[in-house]
Amino acid sequence: MSDPAADIEVADSVHRVAEDIDSMEIRGAATIAAAAAEALGVQAAESDAESPAAFRAELRAAARVLADTRPTAVSLPNALRYVFRDVDGQTVGELRESVHGSVAEFCDRLDTAQNDLGRIGANRLRDGDTIMTHCHSTDVLACVEAAVEQGKSLSAYVKETRPRNQGHITAEALAEMGVDVTLVVDSAARRYLNDVDHVLVGADSIAADGSVVNKIGTSGLAVNARDRGTPIVCAAQTIKLHPGTLTGHTVDIEMREEAEIVDAETAAEIGEPRVLNPAFDVTPPRYVDAIVTERGQFPPESIVTLMRDLFGESTTEPWAEQESHE
Amino acid sequence: MSDPAADIEVADSVHRVAEDIDSMEIRGAATIAAAAAEALGVQAAESDAESPAAFRAELRAAARVLADTRPTAVSLPNALRYVFRDVDGQTVGELRESVHGSVAEFCDRLDTAQNDLGRIGANRLRDGDTIMTHCHSTDVLACVEAAVEQGKSLSAYVKETRPRNQGHITAEALAEMGVDVTLVVDSAARRYLNDVDHVLVGADSIAADGSVVNKIGTSGLAVNARDRGTPIVCAAQTIKLHPGTLTGHTVDIEMREEAEIVDAETAAEIGEPRVLNPAFDVTPPRYVDAIVTERGQFPPESIVTLMRDLFGESTTEPWAEQESHE
Amino acid sequence: MSDPAADIEVADSVHRVAEDIDSMEIRGAATIAAAAAEALGVQAAESDAESPAAFRAELRAAARVLADTRPTAVSLPNALRYVFRDVDGQTVGELRESVHGSVAEFCDRLDTAQNDLGRIGANRLRDGDTIMTHCHSTDVLACVEAAVEQGKSLSAYVKETRPRNQGHITAEALAEMGVDVTLVVDSAARRYLNDVDHVLVGADSIAADGSVVNKIGTSGLAVNARDRGTPIVCAAQTIKLHPGTLTGHTVDIEMREEAEIVDAETAAEIGEPRVLNPAFDVTPPRYVDAIVTERGQFPPESIVTLMRDLFGESTTEPWAEQESHE
Amino acid sequence: MSDPAADIEVADSVHRVAEDIDSMEIRGAATIAAAAAEALGVQAAESDAESPAAFRAELRAAARVLADTRPTAVSLPNALRYVFRDVDGQTVGELRESVHGSVAEFCDRLDTAQNDLGRIGANRLRDGDTIMTHCHSTDVLACVEAAVEQGKSLSAYVKETRPRNQGHITAEALAEMGVDVTLVVDSAARRYLNDVDHVLVGADSIAADGSVVNKIGTSGLAVNARDRGTPIVCAAQTIKLHPGTLTGHTVDIEMREEAEIVDAETAAEIGEPRVLNPAFDVTPPRYVDAIVTERGQFPPESIVTLMRDLFGESTTEPWAEQESHE
Amino acid sequence: MSDPAADIEVADSVHRVAEDIDSMEIRGAATIAAAAAEALGVQAAESDAESPAAFRAELRAAARVLADTRPTAVSLPNALRYVFRDVDGQTVGELRESVHGSVAEFCDRLDTAQNDLGRIGANRLRDGDTIMTHCHSTDVLACVEAAVEQGKSLSAYVKETRPRNQGHITAEALAEMGVDVTLVVDSAARRYLNDVDHVLVGADSIAADGSVVNKIGTSGLAVNARDRGTPIVCAAQTIKLHPGTLTGHTVDIEMREEAEIVDAETAAEIGEPRVLNPAFDVTPPRYVDAIVTERGQFPPESIVTLMRDLFGESTTEPWAEQESHE
Amino acid sequence: MSDPAADIEVADSVHRVAEDIDSMEIRGAATIAAAAAEALGVQAAESDAESPAAFRAELRAAARVLADTRPTAVSLPNALRYVFRDVDGQTVGELRESVHGSVAEFCDRLDTAQNDLGRIGANRLRDGDTIMTHCHSTDVLACVEAAVEQGKSLSAYVKETRPRNQGHITAEALAEMGVDVTLVVDSAARRYLNDVDHVLVGADSIAADGSVVNKIGTSGLAVNARDRGTPIVCAAQTIKLHPGTLTGHTVDIEMREEAEIVDAETAAEIGEPRVLNPAFDVTPPRYVDAIVTERGQFPPESIVTLMRDLFGESTTEPWAEQESHE
Repeated sequence: MSDPAADIEVADSVHRVAEDIDSMEIRGAATIAAAAAEALGVQAAESDAESPAAFRAELRAAARVLADTRPTAVSLPNALRYVFRDVDGQTVGELRESVHGSVAEFCDRLDTAQNDLGRIGANRLRDGDTIMTHCHSTDVLACVEAAVEQGKSLSAYVKETRPRNQGHITAEALAEMGVDVTLVVDSAARRYLNDVDHVLVGADSIAADGSVVNKIGTSGLAVNARDRGTPIVCAAQTIKLHPGTLTGHTVDIEMREEAEIVDAETAAEIGEPRVLNPAFDVTPPRYVDAIVTERGQFPPESIVTLMRDLFGESTTEPWAEQESHE
Repeated sequence: MSDPAADIEVADSVHRVAEDIDSMEIRGAATIAAAAAEALGVQAAESDAESPAAFRAELRAAARVLADTRPTAVSLPNALRYVFRDVDGQTVGELRESVHGSVAEFCDRLDTAQNDLGRIGANRLRDGDTIMTHCHSTDVLACVEAAVEQGKSLSAYVKETRPRNQGHITAEALAEMGVDVTLVVDSAARRYLNDVDHVLVGADSIAADGSVVNKIGTSGLAVNARDRGTPIVCAAQTIKLHPGTLTGHTVDIEMREEAEIVDAETAAEIGEPRVLNPAFDVTPPRYVDAIVTERGQFPPESIVTLMRDLFGESTTEPWAEQESHE
Repeated sequence: MSDPAADIEVADSVHRVAEDIDSMEIRGAATIAAAAAEALGVQAAESDAESPAAFRAELRAAARVLADTRPTAVSLPNALRYVFRDVDGQTVGELRESVHGSVAEFCDRLDTAQNDLGRIGANRLRDGDTIMTHCHSTDVLACVEAAVEQGKSLSAYVKETRPRNQGHITAEALAEMGVDVTLVVDSAARRYLNDVDHVLVGADSIAADGSVVNKIGTSGLAVNARDRGTPIVCAAQTIKLHPGTLTGHTVDIEMREEAEIVDAETAAEIGEPRVLNPAFDVTPPRYVDAIVTERGQFPPESIVTLMRDLFGESTTEPWAEQESHE
Repeated sequence: MSDPAADIEVADSVHRVAEDIDSMEIRGAATIAAAAAEALGVQAAESDAESPAAFRAELRAAARVLADTRPTAVSLPNALRYVFRDVDGQTVGELRESVHGSVAEFCDRLDTAQNDLGRIGANRLRDGDTIMTHCHSTDVLACVEAAVEQGKSLSAYVKETRPRNQGHITAEALAEMGVDVTLVVDSAARRYLNDVDHVLVGADSIAADGSVVNKIGTSGLAVNARDRGTPIVCAAQTIKLHPGTLTGHTVDIEMREEAEIVDAETAAEIGEPRVLNPAFDVTPPRYVDAIVTERGQFPPESIVTLMRDLFGESTTEPWAEQESHE
Repeated sequence: MSDPAADIEVADSVHRVAEDIDSMEIRGAATIAAAAAEALGVQAAESDAESPAAFRAELRAAARVLADTRPTAVSLPNALRYVFRDVDGQTVGELRESVHGSVAEFCDRLDTAQNDLGRIGANRLRDGDTIMTHCHSTDVLACVEAAVEQGKSLSAYVKETRPRNQGHITAEALAEMGVDVTLVVDSAARRYLNDVDHVLVGADSIAADGSVVNKIGTSGLAVNARDRGTPIVCAAQTIKLHPGTLTGHTVDIEMREEAEIVDAETAAEIGEPRVLNPAFDVTPPRYVDAIVTERGQFPPESIVTLMRDLFGESTTEPWAEQESHE
Repeated sequence: MSDPAADIEVADSVHRVAEDIDSMEIRGAATIAAAAAEALGVQAAESDAESPAAFRAELRAAARVLADTRPTAVSLPNALRYVFRDVDGQTVGELRESVHGSVAEFCDRLDTAQNDLGRIGANRLRDGDTIMTHCHSTDVLACVEAAVEQGKSLSAYVKETRPRNQGHITAEALAEMGVDVTLVVDSAARRYLNDVDHVLVGADSIAADGSVVNKIGTSGLAVNARDRGTPIVCAAQTIKLHPGTLTGHTVDIEMREEAEIVDAETAAEIGEPRVLNPAFDVTPPRYVDAIVTERGQFPPESIVTLMRDLFGESTTEPWAEQESHE
């Protein structure tokens, strides 16, 4: 279709932010979210639109530029949704003010969200408990940190998390907090689950059916934790909730490059096998005991109600092009 | 206690075999078993004992030298048990002959066992099936090879099997047989279980309660295979059956060195975590559908009957010192 | 009790619609719902009530006439509830207008609901997927049709669904959409579950405790799907949600006639067994992965929140007689 | 910190109520709740505060006196929360009126809650059904009583509920209602579960993650009920919902005294074992089919939505001291 | 390969029996077994072989003629195996006598086996019990009949067993015994499992891994029975044990014709779906509580020990051609 | 029928032993077994039978006198079976000698059985382990004692085991061995299962289908142990194996008197409920990891093979009257 947005001006700095997200200069769910929200603020500030409609059209265009960079990073469209939700006004001036306020409020919330989540998650942990982690999640670390600040002494089994060994980052961060760390290969997790009080993992995104999408290996761990009677908790800020799943969309699982698993030389030696390297897997809600967010904890089967509160039922993004001819 | 065996002569070549087993010059369950049996044969051949009692005492002493090398390698005492079981005779000559025959028969059986096992395991596989493997097992490979020889076309998901990546050896061997190989990290196994017709693993030893002791990660895989409705089969020759477990003994799980998991430099960077590197884990029988041996297939809960046929109920090893004062 | 509604006039055409629903001239959840709503509209249009109270009394009386026809068809009282919810006004004229608008809006929603549901359900299906169906459900067909329209190629195992073989209707409808259909007897379902990506069923009604009431055989299929690791999805418009269950009422299971199972002659030959022919069964929420409605998808354990949004907490129907003396 | 509330006057009668709760003169979840709410009403009535701020400060102080008595009895802070939620006004007079109304409304609701709950729970029971109970719960009895009043004939297996044999009270109450009672020891429950249509238990508190905290033995019974295919229902008024769990707090499990289990003489005879006497245990939501409240029934995984409706997200209690310097 | 058996004479009556088995004139596991054994007896009686070797060659040839008729009817080769096992003798006369005795003994055992099995199975049933059956099994009927003869009063839910409605035969037979019969469609089974004390099914064959191969629908029923806490018992004479499975062979599942499921006219109307009509399915041992044979009852995981007692470990059939050049 | 045994003389001392067993002067599985065996020895010694047939008839008569005392105590008929099995001889003298030897051997075995069992069970326990026990079992205590003698330090959760509090005896015995004992009510077991390494229970009898019949409460504990991932082991000498179950007989569950649960006064106060007091329950084999006997450990599904070795397949007791007319 012809592009009705063709001559809409998007601020240069929005393009620069988009490029930085695209090239992963800007990365991490919260960092991306903040950058995207602020870019909308810049767009609003720099707009010289002469009508509310033109202003809105520009804002939508800027959002589209940002949203197209990394379609699987759910925090990015979520940031845009939050900002758009509260934009209101009769004049360009009012609208600009409204965007400004909305961005500021979103960024404020983002700043406090991880701390809030951490305190909530920490409340589940008791002094002397042992946790097991998979991969690296700042939300998980926030829970542990808050627990440590509450004076609780904790131990942790840290799975190395092949192929990229993010467990090493987790081990280091936990050690710095004073947690007693034991490092194991992923395959050894089950062996130690009976010594563990909580399996504590993050999420890349969470779906309306209660599924947790997280680093590959999470679902296999969760099934074993259930079999061993060990509770499993997912720590995830609400910017991880995936609004598209409310309308049945599934979360694409990124396939990463072979070289993370086997280098070219070894691959040649062992007969050039096909290599599959999915980054994430999907844990059904029945294997997760609770999802801890900055808005409180939820059974995974109930997270849909929080999603509906936050996103409503609408299946179209507020910056979709088809609205641009209003 | 004083050593009644002090002046019993054990042949030099027995000592040499023992050293080679100890230093892992000789390794692999079947190779160790054959070497140990043959060393008993040499002991018998070279013995200049003057009485049947002295001959028997020497044979027991030789067995003890061999048995002490690697207490966790169950094929070694099993080889000795097989040889001792059939030794009979009234004179030194008859005994020598009997040992000779017993060793020969054991080695003959060993030669054919893997082929027999392979044919039996292959019968469970259908043309077009997809298997998933963990670690490297020549018994598993024998099943696949026999199936390929039966004209069946197979695919395989091969788990790399951290920390030592024995999956690479398996991948290479399967590729050479013409199997279509896909290599995945251990954590990705669950994601592909719905595409798999059989999980096929080996064993380091099998216990009387039906537990399968195998490379770390097997039990977690088996639990997930059950959850996904995928059958799991263990291929293991009878020299893997652990007679001590008939009387309740548990199988020691070898803890291997940290450096297999994390090198010293990285360990230092990430805060010197404790590292636990168990080599094996224990899969309860309820997660295993069948154990395939060269003597036929068995539900794991029934393997105890085969063990009792092979080993009887005796809790003492036939080469134990306390019998030496006969 | 004496009937305060004795001399309230209910329009003839309402009685005619009630008769047609009773005799199953009008049938199918959505068709009944629309007919009932429109009958209320006719009642409002034809009313010559002289006071708002009289008008409301007539409307309630008409609703009772309709509601009494088939007490187990949940879409009927749901239609009435929707219409009543928005009726408001100070004068008969305003009330009449309000009913008219409410009926129109309900019918509009009904028209779009199945399409909306279909698109949401279709989003869960991937190109190349295989589904398994039980009985005949237009909501299920809407999902498949939307998926086909999205360009996805699908296959289906269709259970014949004894005793009335509604699977034949489903098979025909799917074939017309270009789906590759395989017909099996109900007992063969488990055998093919490992080849199936989604079990996709409809519902006759859905309870506040997350239970799915659907054609007999659904629960047994769902238990086997869980055992095989196959997800099970229920497609059901919100007119299937059963408000009475919010207050603990259970859904009556209709017992249908023997002759559907065995004809009289055969029954005589085989000794006149008692024959039980329940039309529906109840699948607990733990065996269902998602309920797809036109308002989005939900874990079954969360459907209660949608029910509360739609119906509130009131345990009395807005057309109940006891309110008629206001 | 210094106590800004130091010279705030709390009414004597509030202190007396607090003492009676503390000494368990006043006990039972609903009785405590009513007494606490009414004490706030007295505080409001007797206040001679001269400013709205002073009035509010007194009310908060009174609430703190009450809240400190038995921190684990969740109905007490819930009563206070309910009262505080609706307090509003510009003048002391308006505030006093508001408190008065809020207390009255709360007590009204409390009066009807158990009856409402009973009717809802009764709807799940059919004529001729057999239930199994654990401990003593007036909410459970309300369900049975309502069912009996609906003309249903019921039987009950009553577990004696060691160590305090509250099953005896339940047995007596059920017998008085005309229920056919069978008394068994706790260990015999599983043996009779196949004869039971509903396991019906109360709750001491219910957590946001859907867990049911109830008399020790409930969780073991629930696991067996699931294994036997018997539904398990928890009857609990909303004053049992634990708001602190919304923010991850866990429910402390009271450890009661040894002498309830073994008297001193016997303990001496049998070697003075350590005795552990936890009063409650925690049943995960996956073992509970429904929670019946006076506001309707819910799957346990959805109770969090009701909790959020009732309590909001705030993690601070409305009577917390830090607000007192407003 | 050239046929060394080319000029071996097989008695005409053996050929006639083979034809009758092939054409299903002779059918039913026990009837086929007896006919085949007796045919060997006739072959022995009519042989004019001049040497033991020639006699044996003829006997093997006759066995091959019989064994080739219906490769999936396991009772046939089992009958032949039983007869061959005890054949011994130095002269043709002795061999003939030995065959005669072996056939007679086998037929004797066959006559008593079903009664013995029935008495053993009956011992599991208590007065007043309700069973559920699937398909038609004379071994199941023998258990019920023996229980009735023991004076026990029984009720039965009989599944009709689509597509061939063998449940009708079962219903009739049970009614004649005085059992209180209820007929249901296959899909209704789960609904009534809580009223059932024993699911009682037969078997077409039983594998060394403990799997029960029986009429399609058995496995889905067994999974539901386990979920409902209802024990499931398989009644099967030892001629149903499948010796080939000792060496890993799987049991072929016969695919029957489409017309059993849908007639040609209907198939045309509904778009000519592919129709799959598997006759049997495979129930894993973990869903079966006991296998009742005439030799006693066994957990399915232990049936392999009985198979090994009966058949040994040999993987070759005693009548295989390659032995014919002895 | 007329009693062919009418004038057979049974020794007075046999009658006295029978009376002592009947009155429970002699009790405990092993004590009863030894007394019964020795009584047969006395019968043989005191017999003045003049023919082998008369001698055998007397022996059978003596066995019947003993067997009739407590039909549910399985160790009694087992003792008789063991003695009868080896009785052989052509003359009265030889027979007498044979009985004497058989009795002596049985008693010898009995003496060593518990020690042997203890050593085998102890091998499963590791230093520092925590066990949980139910009721009182000398076989369980033998395992713990052997482990303590092996130098292992153990802790134990002891369930009090209502209604007769046999847990007190166990607690005392364990404390005397130096085990660190914690006493809990039966309902508290699940709460501590995650701290337990082995649930260790005895058995009253064990059935051929692998079921463990033990003190009421065992099955509910086992189901929870499985849910928590805690292994459950049953310690039971082979005299607990129930031969009648080989032929499908079920084990009668003794119903004990009401007064053990509730005294008459309390019963009157609480409305005279029906009281059911089953002494035992049945744990299916899938909830038991191993059965430890003096002959080694077995998965419960394999115990049938040991039973067949010990008892054969015969369904008639060797002392049955019908044999007396030989």
